[in-house]
This record gives sequence, C-alpha cells and structure tokens, in this order.
Amino acid sequence: MREIHQPDGTYHYVFGPNAEPIAHVSIGESVEIHTVDSASNVLTSEDQKPSEVLGPYLNPQTGPLYIDGVEPGDTLVVHVDSMQATRDWAFSALVPYFGGLTSTRWTPTLQPPLEERVWIYHRTERNTFAWKDRWEVPWAPFYGTMGTAPALESISSLSPGDHGGNMDCPDVTEGNTLYFPVHHPGALFYVGDAHAAQGQGELCGVALEISAKGTFRFDVIKNQAIAWPRIESPTEIMSVGSARPMEDAARIAYHDLIAWIVRDYGFDPLDAYQLLTQLGKCYVGNMVDTTYSLVAKVGKEFLKPVS
Amino acid sequence: MREIHQPDGTYHYVFGPNAEPIAHVSIGESVEIHTVDSASNVLTSEDQKPSEVLGPYLNPQTGPLYIDGVEPGDTLVVHVDSMQATRDWAFSALVPYFGGLTSTRWTPTLQPPLEERVWIYHRTERNTFAWKDRWEVPWAPFYGTMGTAPALESISSLSPGDHGGNMDCPDVTEGNTLYFPVHHPGALFYVGDAHAAQGQGELCGVALEISAKGTFRFDVIKNQAIAWPRIESPTEIMSVGSARPMEDAARIAYHDLIAWIVRDYGFDPLDAYQLLTQLGKCYVGNMVDTTYSLVAKVGKEFLKPVS
Amino acid sequence: MREIHQPDGTYHYVFGPNAEPIAHVSIGESVEIHTVDSASNVLTSEDQKPSEVLGPYLNPQTGPLYIDGVEPGDTLVVHVDSMQATRDWAFSALVPYFGGLTSTRWTPTLQPPLEERVWIYHRTERNTFAWKDRWEVPWAPFYGTMGTAPALESISSLSPGDHGGNMDCPDVTEGNTLYFPVHHPGALFYVGDAHAAQGQGELCGVALEISAKGTFRFDVIKNQAIAWPRIESPTEIMSVGSARPMEDAARIAYHDLIAWIVRDYGFDPLDAYQLLTQLGKCYVGNMVDTTYSLVAKVGKEFLKPVS
Amino acid sequence: MREIHQPDGTYHYVFGPNAEPIAHVSIGESVEIHTVDSASNVLTSEDQKPSEVLGPYLNPQTGPLYIDGVEPGDTLVVHVDSMQATRDWAFSALVPYFGGLTSTRWTPTLQPPLEERVWIYHRTERNTFAWKDRWEVPWAPFYGTMGTAPALESISSLSPGDHGGNMDCPDVTEGNTLYFPVHHPGALFYVGDAHAAQGQGELCGVALEISAKGTFRFDVIKNQAIAWPRIESPTEIMSVGSARPMEDAARIAYHDLIAWIVRDYGFDPLDAYQLLTQLGKCYVGNMVDTTYSLVAKVGKEFLKPVS
Repeated sequence: MREIHQPDGTYHYVFGPNAEPIAHVSIGESVEIHTVDSASNVLTSEDQKPSEVLGPYLNPQTGPLYIDGVEPGDTLVVHVDSMQATRDWAFSALVPYFGGLTSTRWTPTLQPPLEERVWIYHRTERNTFAWKDRWEVPWAPFYGTMGTAPALESISSLSPGDHGGNMDCPDVTEGNTLYFPVHHPGALFYVGDAHAAQGQGELCGVALEISAKGTFRFDVIKNQAIAWPRIESPTEIMSVGSARPMEDAARIAYHDLIAWIVRDYGFDPLDAYQLLTQLGKCYVGNMVDTTYSLVAKVGKEFLKPVS
Repeated sequence: MREIHQPDGTYHYVFGPNAEPIAHVSIGESVEIHTVDSASNVLTSEDQKPSEVLGPYLNPQTGPLYIDGVEPGDTLVVHVDSMQATRDWAFSALVPYFGGLTSTRWTPTLQPPLEERVWIYHRTERNTFAWKDRWEVPWAPFYGTMGTAPALESISSLSPGDHGGNMDCPDVTEGNTLYFPVHHPGALFYVGDAHAAQGQGELCGVALEISAKGTFRFDVIKNQAIAWPRIESPTEIMSVGSARPMEDAARIAYHDLIAWIVRDYGFDPLDAYQLLTQLGKCYVGNMVDTTYSLVAKVGKEFLKPVS
Repeated sequence: MREIHQPDGTYHYVFGPNAEPIAHVSIGESVEIHTVDSASNVLTSEDQKPSEVLGPYLNPQTGPLYIDGVEPGDTLVVHVDSMQATRDWAFSALVPYFGGLTSTRWTPTLQPPLEERVWIYHRTERNTFAWKDRWEVPWAPFYGTMGTAPALESISSLSPGDHGGNMDCPDVTEGNTLYFPVHHPGALFYVGDAHAAQGQGELCGVALEISAKGTFRFDVIKNQAIAWPRIESPTEIMSVGSARPMEDAARIAYHDLIAWIVRDYGFDPLDAYQLLTQLGKCYVGNMVDTTYSLVAKVGKEFLKPVS
Repeated sequence: MREIHQPDGTYHYVFGPNAEPIAHVSIGESVEIHTVDSASNVLTSEDQKPSEVLGPYLNPQTGPLYIDGVEPGDTLVVHVDSMQATRDWAFSALVPYFGGLTSTRWTPTLQPPLEERVWIYHRTERNTFAWKDRWEVPWAPFYGTMGTAPALESISSLSPGDHGGNMDCPDVTEGNTLYFPVHHPGALFYVGDAHAAQGQGELCGVALEISAKGTFRFDVIKNQAIAWPRIESPTEIMSVGSARPMEDAARIAYHDLIAWIVRDYGFDPLDAYQLLTQLGKCYVGNMVDTTYSLVAKVGKEFLKPVS
C-alpha cells in the first residue's frame, strides 16, 4: 500500500485552497497516511512547560491530497479503514488560557491563567493508556482534525467549521465513513491530530495526543452537495455542527441530520423533526476550540417502517 | 405501599417554598407517586390543535413532599426504584414558537411559526411506542421534571435550574439515584412530566408524554451541601448543568463533576480536569426550555487506581 | 406628598405575587418612594470585605405598591418625575465570582476569584462622584431595579426579565416613563437599587450604589398588554430585552421595538425592521446579572413622514 | 492626491496574506481610496430580487495596500480624514436567511425565510437619505469593513475578527483613527463596504450601502502590538470585540480597553475595571455577521486626575 508522508517541514496549519497537493489518490485506492501529533512531536516530558516549548502554530496537517475525479458540487466520501499509533505513549497538557474550564482569548477575564501541566501516558498490555498508576484510558483512537479546503477562505487547523477541520469528535474513527463538502477539483483533503482517546468535550483542550498512521479509501457522490460534515457508522448516521454559542452547533447538527433523513429516507421534514425528538442523540465533541462541535445522530434501524 | 396522588386541582406550576406539603414521607419509606402528563392529560387526539386546547400553565407537578428529617444544608437523596406508565399511549406535539428548530419567545424572529401538529403513539407488544406503522421508540421511561424548592424564588415548572426542575435528562430514571440541594426543612420535593422515552435534546420540545406512577425512596446526606443536581447510576456519576448559552451548561456540569470527584474520590482538581478530558461524556438533555440542560458524566470504574 | 418607606426589616428580595402591598396608590397621585442601597446600606468603608459583610440576600426592594384600578392585561405606566440621593457618597465593589470580567457561578472556571475591593466615592461640588483625586463620575442617577410581579413565579431581585427587575439600564431615570406588563390586580410594583451613575454593562457588577428617594406617578393603559418592559423619553422609545446569550437580549429588544412601532406608528413590520436597521440604537445595560439586559431604541422624530 | 482604484475585476473577498499589493503607500502620504458597494454595485432597483442578482461572493474589498515601513509586531495607524459617497442613492435589502431577526445558516430553524425586499433611498437637500416620503436617515457615513491581513488565515470579508474586517461599527468614520494588528510586512490593508448610515446592530443585515471615496493617511507605532482593533475619536478611545456569543464580544472589547488604559494611562487593572464600570459605554455594532461586533469606549476626559 502506498504510504503518504508530509514532505519535510511542510505541514499545513490552515485548511485552504492555495497549497500544492502532496499526492494524487484514485477513487477506491487504499493509502496509508502518516500524521505527527498536534504539538509537532515536541512535547515529550512532564518537565516541559508548553508555553516554552510550543511554536507559534499548532496542529500540523498532512495534505492536501488531491482525489482524482472529485469536482466542486460533489460530496467527498472518506473511509477510515484502520488507525494505529506510531508510538507507545501520548501526552496531554494544560496550556495557559486554553481549555473548557478557564478563561480564554475568546472568553477573557482578568484572572490569571491556570498553572501549566503536562501528563505523559504510557500504553499498557491491557490496550489502555495509563497515567502512572492513577488511572487508565481504553484505546479508542480517532482523528481530531479532518476535512477539505473551504471555497475561498484558509481556516486555521485549530478551528472546526463546515469544511470539517478541528472537530474533535470521537466518531471520526476507524470503521466509519466521513462525508465532506467539495469546493475545489480534487477536494483537497487534510488530516491530522490523531488521538489515542478523548472524552466528550475535550475538556482541558488537549486529548491523548499521538503520532499515527491510518488506512484510508476515498469515494465520491457525484453532483450531490452537502452543507456540513457527516459521519456514518455501521449502525448510525451523524451530522456535525460547529458554531458558537453551543446551541447553534446543536441546531446546525440536528438541522442537517433532518435534511439527510428527508433526502435519503423519504421523510417529511416535520416527521423527521419528531422522530429525532424521541430517538436522536447529541453529544459535545469539543467545547474548547474557536467554535464548538456537536454531533447529532440516530440509529439507522429507526428509519425503517415498523415491521 | 402508600400511594401519593395530588389532591384534585392543586397541581403546582412552580417549584417554590410557599406551597403546603401534600404528604410527609419518612427516610427509607417506599412511596408510589402518581403524576399526570405535561399537558394535564388534555391532549388526546391528532385532530386537536395545541394552541386551542392547552391552558395557560403547563407541566403540572405532584408535590411538594416533606421528607422528614431533612434540613437546609443537607443533600436530599432520591432513589427511583421503578416507573410505570398508567396508560398505553403517549403524545408529542408541535406548539407554536416552542422547540429547538424554531424561533421562540426567547430567540424571536419575524418569521411565522411552524404549523401545529400532534402525534399519538401507541404501545406495542414489543415494549415500544409506535407512531402508525412508520417508526417505533423503545420504552425508556424517565421523569422530565424533578427537584426541590429553591431558597427564595418560585420557579416555573417549565424551567430547569440548580434546584433541578425541568431538566429533561433521560438519566433521571428507574434504577438511578438523584441528589438535590436542600433549602427548606423537609426539602419540599416535586416531580412530574413523565416520558415514555426521549432523544437527547428533546428536539421539538415535547417528548413521549405520559401519565405515570413511580416507586420512590428518600434518603439524606446530613450537613453536606451540593450546588447542582447530581445523578448516580450503578456504573456512573453525573452532574446536570442548566444555563444559557449552552456552553455555560456544559461548564457547570463538568465543573460540578470535578467537585464531586475531588471531594469523594480524593483527586487533585487539575487531575480530575485531566481525567474528564479523556474519559468524560457530555450530552444535551434539553435544548428547548428557558435554559438548557447538559449532563456530564464518567464511569466509576475509572476513578479507582490502575490495578 | 405622601412618603413611602418600606416597613422595617421587610424589604423584598423577590419580585413575586405573594407579598402584601405596603401601600395603595391612586392613578395620577405623586408619591415619594424611599429605597436603601443594594447592599442594605452595610458597605461603608474601603476596609471592608464584601464576602464578610454582605448577607445571604442582596438588592432589597421597596414594595409592592398596589396601584388602584390596574388589572391583568393592562399596561402599567410609571412616570419617574425626579430622583435624589439621600446621602453624599456611593460605593462600588468587587465581589468574588461576580462581574463581567471574571468567571462566575454561571460561567465557572477552575481559576481563583479576583481579589475583593471596595471603592467609596464622595460627592463633589461639581455634581460628580469622585474616587479620591483619581477620577470622577458625573451625577446621572437611575434605578437599577424596577418592575411588577410575574404571573406565577417569584423571581430574585438580582435577575431581570420580562417583568422588569434588575435591568440596570441607565434610561430608567427621572424624566422618563416606564411601561410594565400587569399580571395581578394592582400590578404589584417594586423598586430599588438606586445608582448615582453607571456605565453601559455595569462591568464589574456594582454601580455607584446609593440610598435614594424618588417622586413617582402611575398611570394605566387599559386592556393593552405588552410582552417586555418599555421606556419612553421625551425624544425616544425603547424596549428592554433580558436574556442569555446576549444576542437573544438584543433580538428580544429589537423585536419588541418593532411591535411597538407597528402598533402605535402604523408601520408594516418589514418597514419597521428596515427603519431600525438604519436608525436604531442598541446598548448593553448589564452583562453581569443572571441574564443580560440590552436596550434597543429609536428617535421619535424618525417615525413621522418626511416633511 | 493619489487615487487608488482596485484594478478591474480583482476585488478581494478575503482578508489574507496571499494577494499582491495593489499599491505601496508611504507613512504620512494622503491617498484617496475608491470602493464599490457591498453588492458590487449590481443592486439598483426595488424590482430586483437579491437572491437572483447577487453573485456567490459579497463585500468586495479594495486592497491590499502595502504601507511602507510597517513590520510584524507594529501597530498600523489609519487616519480616515474624509469620506464621500460617489453616488446619490443607497440600497438596503432583505436577503433570505440573513439578518438579525430571522433564522440563518448559523442559527437554523425549519421555518421558511422572510420575503425578499429592496429599499432604494435617495439623497435629499437636507443631507439625508430618504425612502420615498416615509422616513429619512441623516448622512452619517462610515466603512463597514476595514483591516489588515491575518497571520495565517484568509478570512471572508463578511466576517469580523481580531484583524478588523466586517465590523460594521459606525465609529469607523471620518475624523477618527483606527489601530490594527500587523502580521506581515506592509500590514496589507483592505477597505470596503461604505455605508451612508447604519443603526447599531445593522439589524436586517444590510445598511445604506454606497460606493464611496475616502481620504486616508497611514502611520505606525513601532514595536508595539495590539490584540484587537481600536478606534480613537477626538474625545474617546474604543476597542472592538468580535465573537459569538455576543457576551464574548463585550468581554473582549472591555478587556482590551482595560489593557489600553493600563498601558497608556497608567492605571492599575482593577481600577480601570472600576472606572469602566461607571463610565464605559458599550454598543452593538453588528448582530448579523458570522460573529458579532461590540464597541466598548470611554471619554478621554475621564482618564485624567480630578482637577
């Protein structure tokens, strides 16, 4: 299988239309994509201070990949067939004025920041990542960041949006299929920010960050556009809304999921609204990035007539 | 077992300190509490228009119950041992300018309201509630509204808050234990708004509304106050935050869950923050009431040292 | 003129329907209402710590006044004819976890609170309140809190809402007319929280707090209900929206102002929307209370045909 | 004076670092910059439907201008010396799902959009813009959009942010001075979206849109960075915060204004916080763009010791 590595030093920190593709990939081809961690692999010890070690830009992305045959107005289909860590440890950290329970650049207060901290977790024989002998987290890997180039803008890889980006939703994982809007020939696909695991919300702002490799296959739905990223698992369909305030992310996610059910499952919009009232699920992906990401979903079993 | 019914016509539409208790209950005593549905049982047909049928006040509560031996500064403990519907059908509805995907009194626009609709579901032999032959919803009952009297205020039974109230969180259910702040002797406990099931967010604003009876036992934690409602299941601990914007509900829920972990499990606050970053879960209970309710939770298994 | 003082020790900390009126007032009668400051006159020195001095309840209200002849469904009209401080100093303070640039009980973080501070200002000969020789604030008095009893609820005097309450809008001042919804016979009017001056937003949460007396006259608009508080100055009409997030307060204020222009000035709703786009003003009253208050307004001169 | 026109067809729809400068300008040089209206001058009649006439991209910007001698880490100073309309009419419009009192792409509901409308205003002899004989708006011109290139991102000209952009704040006007962060040599300055007037909030989303020319002079503060755009009038200093929810825009604006007062006027941060509590003003610039812009300000007279 072809391996795709970012050419040295050229990781991207925006999702945008201007970068040269690093590879062309055919529909149906399996490729193995390698990613570095969200801190460019420089945070390795609990003795480090993030504010002294981290560079000005965070969350380096591998890409863009040009997917042959994909055109504006299509939907890009991304199968994440498998995902592996390329090291046996992960870090998390407290970074000044970043996180869900601190004031931030966007929600500023006059209070001093929380102290800086680094946690280094090690992989165990039980397929978990443990912090000392204190607690352990089951291996549940996913990509925090994935998406396509926006139409006009170049958006920071720290931000999620309708192009995907830094959604930090644990369902962006192996065995699932992603759908993204396409605004440029080849779609211009980026991926990065692999996590060994993460709770819902990514509360302190930093998951279990790892370098990783994943096996991907791409497909296309011709001449059918979508407005927001979507996810499909073997049992569920999901829409991801990214916005602030958080209620707008929830509205976007459920609104898009209704559009999906109406188009592909033949529902009247108000019936879809009703069905999701009783059967939808909605969790917080991230509550720490520049905009927040929520996932709305429903089991596919419920979208069939009662038997 | 003693049955508790609201004396005729005296259902309450506020959680407040001024109403006379309808019963005194002892610590440890099992009582069966009966509740009418959130529309006072008047919505019974798909031919009705909610705006023509509903009275001025919604969500009638059974209570207040005076729990003997409970004092201000204690925590009220509520075991919901079982829950049954007292009829074999449920309604949901679209009410003008109410719901998650419409403008409302609190998020007004100049657009006309969505059309009114009523859905009547019937119980099946498969232990589901079905709407015609179109879809069915597994029986997953819980109480949309439960709590204690606030210190000074009398708060509408349509609102959730730090007293509990209309949280619409599916984990307020049989087999789980609720914890509420106590501001008055006897705690003054109210309950209502039983649901046969509900998705996360209660998207259109109206779940599968039923009349119900439930078996409750009360307990107390003396001289220990809590700031927000909490839930415990056999496997998880959970805090419920209710606020707008929704990010504040998420912050409150996770902040309170950290306080719980620090006090009862001996964690350093920043370690608890870290642990929840990787292992917490956070879902939307309601995104339709005057304030929104989010549940943050974590598995109790993760709060023990690594073995 | 009749003076109205609160009977000793019976100040109210909620706007609610249950308290006994302290006085009956006739339509058109001038009365002088006395109010204590928002800290019950206990904060008097910069050496005090608010957390040690303040009682459990803040913002005592004088009332309720029963306005004869006013019935549910009417609009209460309140003329504030004049306003005077009853002392020559004012305080402001930093209270832990309260204010616009700190985390709070409703927007919690893990950071420690800001330090506590008290500022005592003294009246000068220039009709200002000065803090030492550092800065001075022109006398611009108004009532931070004013309103009527809600229909069912009893709402903390620290909260603003559709009943008025703790709006902290500087236009609630002498020479202006207030309009409030009426839910009970006599309207049940409360007032308190006099300020010598305040910036827009009441940024740290505490204005220049004074004890005061004001001259009020009441009137009624029979059989005409309003949804939110309104203010009229000699030159402007204004609506006050109170909600969170703050955009909802802005939406409510402008939405209600359109309703006013449509009903009283004969505009088409979309023309009123257009006119306010070009001529409306919208400022932050408070960004510190449990919900935020914004004022939308427009000059009456613009509501007449072009001459 | 040198006139600067955008070379044909090359207007920009993003604020970004990648475009070639259209002109180099020296510090202190007066230049006259020409701008087209936010609809590229295609909306000219009340018989048009915006959805049929408008292209895919809105709000064309003139620029970027390279200001000689300005380097990253400096502050760009922009004097708007004068501003003139280059035509005698202005338009406003209702665009589907855009505006402050409609659901939008970011706050979606299931309701249909408001009807489309165009209003064409004509300049009168009274120096106003009148709509028919119904109402008129005094000439009060300003630039809705102005700013510098962000560090890495290319941001839609419909969005405001810490680079400036589509702030829609009426204080960005003749006689005032703007301050912007600098991330690239030459600062890369853009301007557009001239308005004949606008209310606070730009309620329906479209002000009195005009083509215009303005006289600008640029200056620089060397080696002094700012975090957010600032404005200075002869009598006031102002900071502009752009974010959602709106309370975050207010927090940012006041937080930055405190930083300004601390650095340039020698205040202790908590004293600045106190002063703005009593003397600050805070209005809504826009409540319709992708993020909202609020202006916090204070009179310079209050920042001097009491005399």
